[in-house]
Amino acid sequence: MRQVKKTIDARGRKLGGEIPLLCTPLVGRTREQLLAECARVIAQKPDMFEWRVDHFDAIGDTRLVIDTAHALRALAGKRPIIFTCRGADDGGEQVPISDDQVVELYDAVAASRFVDLVDYEMTNHPERVRRVRASTRSHKVRLILSYHNVSYTPGPEFLVRQFLEAERMGADVAMVVVMPRDRADVLSLLAATDQADAKTHIPLVSISMGPLGSVSRMIGGLFGSGLTFAVGESASAPGQVPIRDLVAVFDIIRRARGGEMY
Amino acid sequence: MRQVKKTIDARGRKLGGEIPLLCTPLVGRTREQLLAECARVIAQKPDMFEWRVDHFDAIGDTRLVIDTAHALRALAGKRPIIFTCRGADDGGEQVPISDDQVVELYDAVAASRFVDLVDYEMTNHPERVRRVRASTRSHKVRLILSYHNVSYTPGPEFLVRQFLEAERMGADVAMVVVMPRDRADVLSLLAATDQADAKTHIPLVSISMGPLGSVSRMIGGLFGSGLTFAVGESASAPGQVPIRDLVAVFDIIRRARGGEMY
Repeated sequence: MRQVKKTIDARGRKLGGEIPLLCTPLVGRTREQLLAECARVIAQKPDMFEWRVDHFDAIGDTRLVIDTAHALRALAGKRPIIFTCRGADDGGEQVPISDDQVVELYDAVAASRFVDLVDYEMTNHPERVRRVRASTRSHKVRLILSYHNVSYTPGPEFLVRQFLEAERMGADVAMVVVMPRDRADVLSLLAATDQADAKTHIPLVSISMGPLGSVSRMIGGLFGSGLTFAVGESASAPGQVPIRDLVAVFDIIRRARGGEMY
Repeated sequence: MRQVKKTIDARGRKLGGEIPLLCTPLVGRTREQLLAECARVIAQKPDMFEWRVDHFDAIGDTRLVIDTAHALRALAGKRPIIFTCRGADDGGEQVPISDDQVVELYDAVAASRFVDLVDYEMTNHPERVRRVRASTRSHKVRLILSYHNVSYTPGPEFLVRQFLEAERMGADVAMVVVMPRDRADVLSLLAATDQADAKTHIPLVSISMGPLGSVSRMIGGLFGSGLTFAVGESASAPGQVPIRDLVAVFDIIRRARGGEMY
């Protein structure tokens, strides 16, 4: 039944393999803060980093962004980096640049090859999604197309359609992040991930947000989510789980499953 | 929406409260083995014990069973004890006594008051269920009515009906234990528990068995299961989780939910 999945190899780490990758978001406001944050977190050995550039004060200064990506690349070593500008509507920051300038920034950063993946919201204008896809493809950078809903959790059929639509739009990875209103919503997100995993050929990532959804960050890998975001220093939002806690839960699950990989 | 639940107070421990209780099964074949097992496990501080008397060689010797229950009671201190004869069809042992003799044994053990709860399969003949209910009620022992399916996981509507039927038959606690064939079955069991929890007034217990279902033993409490079985010494079946691992997972979940109780 299950499709043979294309796993993505980013600097030797497999996204979409049997073990979910632990990705730590970096939210420094300046070059110095960002690099210091990365240097401190790296001791906890996350599998990869996400630079949330929407938190970066100088987001409008493309040269500084690329210079910072360069320094981050050197610091991260073999760990892959996701470059993400998350807008305020999708749970990120208010950014002082236009939608078109974001596309141009993505293009410049992809061209630099200092990052391995970019994350772009699939509900952006189709022409912008097309441009980001063309740019990342030409620069051999992977594209995560994501759907965020910070208000509620749509029904499971809708969620499955988002994963399929991301694949149809050319995503290398499809991500769905939603806010639960009750515990049944958490199970809906997991069930939709499981169903979509059987219907797609690309790695999936899914998250149920907030304290109620935090368990999805721990067990999503059992239902087809290939990556989980883990806090390195301190949680920037309730529901985020520290790296060491996720590693502990993964070990316990692995043992309980009789050594079967997560 | 959610009903006010009747929690069960067993020697000060609340079954059906906000924290799932950790119950360790004891499977010694002799009085000596059973008591030694209990003595070793007690250091790990399970909340309660289940004496699986179907593993007991002398199950046919009612006086020895009661004498052993007495010794177990002394050893367990304030920890509640569930007394369970699980038949081979439901994942237990082949027992050398008849169905009617099991009912008589339950009656004698309930009368002794050395145990706090008994677990009886709800698919037994209705007249036997009625007798066990009458006997436990008259001796002020709590009754868990359980549904086991060691082959597969029926659909969620069927599972919800089992919880409701157990309550209708007079159970103090309703338990559903099923075998998953795929990961969607694990989510079905959790969803059914969540739905039944909103429709019943008694504490519920639910488990998805085997390595695939082991995660339900860790997170079932988030979806309405009030008790989880935890291994004290060594797993007697794949999928069972050691006490210390469950305690670790509960702590991590509690922190991720911002201190909200599990």
